[in-house]
Amino acid sequence: MQLDFSYYNPTTIHFGKDSLAKLKEEAPKFGETVMLVYGRNAIKANGLYDKVVAILEEAGKKVVELSGVMPNPTLEKMREGVKIVRENNVSLILAVGGGSVIDCAKGISVSAYCEDQDPFVKYWCEFKDVDNEVVPVASILTMVGTGSEMNGGSVITNEETKYKAGRVFPAHVFPKFSILNPEYTFTVSQYQMVSGVFDTMSHLMEQYFSDKGANTTDYVIESLLKSSIDNLRVALKDPQDYEARSNLMWNATLALNTLTGLSKSQDWQVHMIEHQLGAYTDCAHGMGLAAISLPYYRLIYKFGLEKFVRFATQVWGVSAQGKTDEEIALAGIDALEAFTKECGIVTSLEELGATKEMLPKIAESTIILGGGYHAITTQEIQQVLEACF
Amino acid sequence: MQLDFSYYNPTTIHFGKDSLAKLKEEAPKFGETVMLVYGRNAIKANGLYDKVVAILEEAGKKVVELSGVMPNPTLEKMREGVKIVRENNVSLILAVGGGSVIDCAKGISVSAYCEDQDPFVKYWCEFKDVDNEVVPVASILTMVGTGSEMNGGSVITNEETKYKAGRVFPAHVFPKFSILNPEYTFTVSQYQMVSGVFDTMSHLMEQYFSDKGANTTDYVIESLLKSSIDNLRVALKDPQDYEARSNLMWNATLALNTLTGLSKSQDWQVHMIEHQLGAYTDCAHGMGLAAISLPYYRLIYKFGLEKFVRFATQVWGVSAQGKTDEEIALAGIDALEAFTKECGIVTSLEELGATKEMLPKIAESTIILGGGYHAITTQEIQQVLEACF
Repeated sequence: MQLDFSYYNPTTIHFGKDSLAKLKEEAPKFGETVMLVYGRNAIKANGLYDKVVAILEEAGKKVVELSGVMPNPTLEKMREGVKIVRENNVSLILAVGGGSVIDCAKGISVSAYCEDQDPFVKYWCEFKDVDNEVVPVASILTMVGTGSEMNGGSVITNEETKYKAGRVFPAHVFPKFSILNPEYTFTVSQYQMVSGVFDTMSHLMEQYFSDKGANTTDYVIESLLKSSIDNLRVALKDPQDYEARSNLMWNATLALNTLTGLSKSQDWQVHMIEHQLGAYTDCAHGMGLAAISLPYYRLIYKFGLEKFVRFATQVWGVSAQGKTDEEIALAGIDALEAFTKECGIVTSLEELGATKEMLPKIAESTIILGGGYHAITTQEIQQVLEACF
Repeated sequence: MQLDFSYYNPTTIHFGKDSLAKLKEEAPKFGETVMLVYGRNAIKANGLYDKVVAILEEAGKKVVELSGVMPNPTLEKMREGVKIVRENNVSLILAVGGGSVIDCAKGISVSAYCEDQDPFVKYWCEFKDVDNEVVPVASILTMVGTGSEMNGGSVITNEETKYKAGRVFPAHVFPKFSILNPEYTFTVSQYQMVSGVFDTMSHLMEQYFSDKGANTTDYVIESLLKSSIDNLRVALKDPQDYEARSNLMWNATLALNTLTGLSKSQDWQVHMIEHQLGAYTDCAHGMGLAAISLPYYRLIYKFGLEKFVRFATQVWGVSAQGKTDEEIALAGIDALEAFTKECGIVTSLEELGATKEMLPKIAESTIILGGGYHAITTQEIQQVLEACF
């Protein structure tokens, strides 16, 4: 099935070893005050912080900052950023870090001048249109996975209510530019690298496992899954392999810059479950996704058998010879599981920090989207969670 | 090898059965006078012309037009359009047709307010930066192949000098929006459909056959080649298969919207030879490309053996078992040739309208780019032409 779509992605990507130099060209396009948004000490330890500040100061910018953005950025941290933006009349929010930092930056961007009510309620709970001024966002990416560098996604967690809410904002909220230097990812731990690649793969699978037939988007998704698999194997042997790290970085961007969702109705149920898992455990997003994906796909494959057969043969090279479609499909999911083991993925929720008591709460608080091949029930979500506990 | 790149593509795509309705949303964004640019009678015969004019008039636009744009649009036709734009203060150039019509529209866009010298010399011969006002361009695509609907390419032929000159303009010259309704391509003849798909495939191969190793872009190219092959087979059996025609249409856009060239040094020698073939014979572009590709790739495969092996196994499913790399690579090119025969591609230059006497002139006037796996000589170009005469 081919669905009608509109596609518009105005983010400029500067990619490669020398891409930080492009900040010199981009900086003059924005106003006087830049707010740096970043996490903890990583960018100070590796020298990136100093380089970025030097370029901005040379361009005559006043630099203010919001530091300490955590994985699963909180509403409280976002509010802290809003205050800085308003007090300093910030004209560019420059996120330096991974997806959490960029998500937080976008949240600040749309919330800073939202006057009429609580921005979190308006934009992340009621999904209202953005009708106030937004502050331009840009990013320097240091960790791979979420694709936030070239899309409108922003996931913010309300710690008080344990609610992790995702929102996809329209194109004028996308980063104006994103700088992607694969070398910045060399120092990311193996655990985080693997988690990021599984986030990428999960984004691809969530879009792939929907609709009958196979359209061009499905072919493109298969190619990005194969590139992720091949290059993660290389990067696990040599984390400093530039070619492999650059491919993993670009795969992650393409996996969620809306291109790989075009003409697809999409599923996203695994992400919905993981969001609630993340709200309870603060586990690495990609690890949580991998854990949930295996029992989830074993639950739903029968409803989209044709696509799961394609997944097995096209992505994993499963031989169809002498097998029923059902056997081929299951062999594809087995291949995915074998790959998680090969890469040291943690697929036990217990190891990821969940307790048995959390499972019903996670299941009950998960939003059911009803897309994909099967409209799951809360009871089935609990079964999925128990299967990977 | 991963090369540094910058990527920015601001064209909005409206794709699908109901995409023409988006013209109503787009029209108010531009000024009062719209110049329609189109070919001969096709869009009047199928009713599209009347629908477009009705939408524009309802939006309060004054419509002027440039008709009779030919395949391989001429400098003279472009100058005719420039005159209309200046006389009517045109604020949007709306191309309705295939790549030739859109290429011509872009040519008019950059030339209309170029005051200082001959725009053709400035932009297509001396490749100077665009430093004058450009008139916004948009397109409604009715024929698949060139990708002009989402890029800066514009190929214009100087009939007097027999020089077909290609130029890639920067992002502010890209169409502001392009409307892609696969149903508009149903009435395109089988000959033109097949020619368009081979244009797509040639764009993909020209980008693919360069550099060592395989990066994400190579994986994506392989997926688009496979989608082109699979869907052309379906469309040849049933030209009204919406799914197949929509995939072929979107493949063509992706094949040349700069995404599939990222991080690749690229070749483009086949296009250089075909441009001169086209200047002499006015043959269908895709047919000329297919004819030249076969002897060209048999000439150069040894210099990029690893990639040609990948091409054979990943795109054509050639079994590697018991074969040397050279045998695998050649089997891939044989598979490409078999596919041209299967689809009724004309691969004889004589049948495409060339004479023996033209061959040296075509060879001598071909620009040698020196990229790709092998820096070809004029003598080798002549051998390639003779091999497919």
